[in-house]
Amino acid sequence: MGTLRITDVVPSPADDCESLMKAFKGLGTNEKSVISVLGHRNASQRKKIRETYQQLYNRSLVDDIFSELSGDFRKAVLLWTYEPSERDARLANEALKSKKKTIIQLQVIVEIACASSPDHLVAVRQAYCGLFNCSLEEDIKANVPMPVQKILIGLVRSYRYDKELVDPSIANAEAAILREAIRTKQLDSDNFLMILSTRNVHQLRATFKCYNQNYGFTIDQDMKSCGKGLLESILKVVIWCIDSPEKHFAEVVGASIVGIGTDEDSLTRAIVTRAEVDMMKVKGEYFIANKSSLDNAVIGDTSGDYMKFLMSLLGAKV
Amino acid sequence: MGTLRITDVVPSPADDCESLMKAFKGLGTNEKSVISVLGHRNASQRKKIRETYQQLYNRSLVDDIFSELSGDFRKAVLLWTYEPSERDARLANEALKSKKKTIIQLQVIVEIACASSPDHLVAVRQAYCGLFNCSLEEDIKANVPMPVQKILIGLVRSYRYDKELVDPSIANAEAAILREAIRTKQLDSDNFLMILSTRNVHQLRATFKCYNQNYGFTIDQDMKSCGKGLLESILKVVIWCIDSPEKHFAEVVGASIVGIGTDEDSLTRAIVTRAEVDMMKVKGEYFIANKSSLDNAVIGDTSGDYMKFLMSLLGAKV
Repeated sequence: MGTLRITDVVPSPADDCESLMKAFKGLGTNEKSVISVLGHRNASQRKKIRETYQQLYNRSLVDDIFSELSGDFRKAVLLWTYEPSERDARLANEALKSKKKTIIQLQVIVEIACASSPDHLVAVRQAYCGLFNCSLEEDIKANVPMPVQKILIGLVRSYRYDKELVDPSIANAEAAILREAIRTKQLDSDNFLMILSTRNVHQLRATFKCYNQNYGFTIDQDMKSCGKGLLESILKVVIWCIDSPEKHFAEVVGASIVGIGTDEDSLTRAIVTRAEVDMMKVKGEYFIANKSSLDNAVIGDTSGDYMKFLMSLLGAKV
Repeated sequence: MGTLRITDVVPSPADDCESLMKAFKGLGTNEKSVISVLGHRNASQRKKIRETYQQLYNRSLVDDIFSELSGDFRKAVLLWTYEPSERDARLANEALKSKKKTIIQLQVIVEIACASSPDHLVAVRQAYCGLFNCSLEEDIKANVPMPVQKILIGLVRSYRYDKELVDPSIANAEAAILREAIRTKQLDSDNFLMILSTRNVHQLRATFKCYNQNYGFTIDQDMKSCGKGLLESILKVVIWCIDSPEKHFAEVVGASIVGIGTDEDSLTRAIVTRAEVDMMKVKGEYFIANKSSLDNAVIGDTSGDYMKFLMSLLGAKV
């Protein structure tokens, strides 16, 4: 369940566009008005607003947001306004083109591959080709060293069966294969990757449960025996994104806030991508892990229009 | 360029449905009428006919074809009537579930992965999940032995960039990687598969050209040094389907006809799947390879309504 609160009486797309155009007009921008419109519309409503804006003013809403807003607020509103497949294609590209390629950047690709629907993943791959003149796989190949490259390519190429269908004997057999790969420290083996990238998520959750029952450890705990490198970190995110994406995103929010300074990019991404999906659960997991609320963390670590916009996606009446 | 001849004045879908219903009614079927309608409509017209038939009679056109026609004729008309993505999902499933798994069966999967558009391939994977309660990859994994399994899964998971974009330096570098894999007989290596399954077809054609220029042999000739097993046969089909699908399908037609008896399944598949794509070129390649026309070969090796239907797809005025 998401946290986005849609206005009780939603104005027509044309009215919303007029409000946005008014907010942009003249010197300065009425940020409050931008938040009150876009911060309370779901994906299909935003799509209609984008299309109507283009028709009415012969201008791109995304371009106007880019030139009228700034900083983290701009980035958040932009990500929220893009078609979700385009948004994720851009996030993946940004991760692949960034100088640093730590877990902070590369986990974005795992989230797209493992914590969204098979059809969304395909749409992201299609959008990527359209935006960046090569396939997502080609850019992973060119920018990520082995063995993480192999894992990421395997995952983004998946098209999982998307109904709840679990075969307990497969769960048992494949838990053993996963266990053997971990025991022999072969986390990049074809067998290991094939299971994680072809099976449907319900089957995989059953397999992980079997793993825990049969071997006394959860698979992500057990994997720690293999080391603490990028490969292990990526695979931990894979398992969490499949098993309980809400836990993963609660951790992303927590990590983005902890210590001095805030990782705004990660915070924005987690909230923007999950506000319409499972943010209620993410809040729950955040509370369990941190004994404090995610809302308070966001209020404490961000400010101004950026804070107000995130809070509106988190369900506050802004 | 295809060979399908669409009637000059196309009746409305409702009129076509009425003709088909009339052809099915009572004892016996008017096969001529079925051919004269379906044998002269393109994919989007057939789609409308399917939908209109369902609306008008609350019956499935595909089911009625199944119960009214028989033999190779029925199979050809059915394949022609399915939505192309569903058709190919069914062809792949039939190949994977057949007892024999020689190149004759498995090349079907290569054709879908390498000789059709990236979007079509994705649509086939979606259709496969809908029809068979598991992903195409899972069924390949369960039914095809290694190392061919690895190649096929890699290929069906591709989503290639689909515009004409060639980097000559990549062509040169990757020709060398392909050459090295062939020299060391490692046709199932990750490197080899990654190139064949991630690069766009125009890039790969340039890479194959480079291969020929740099090493004095075409890559498929060179691969013969690795043996004559299923793996080598599959990879030869991969290269042909990427480099010149028309040559591959001319060979499929030739092989289906040569010797005593005809392999109707392969003949039907080649004609049904390419009639709207590149059958003119396939005919040209067939003529070059066999010094006789593909049309004459079909007329000589098939008969009755089956022959008439294939000939209508090949552009004859039936």
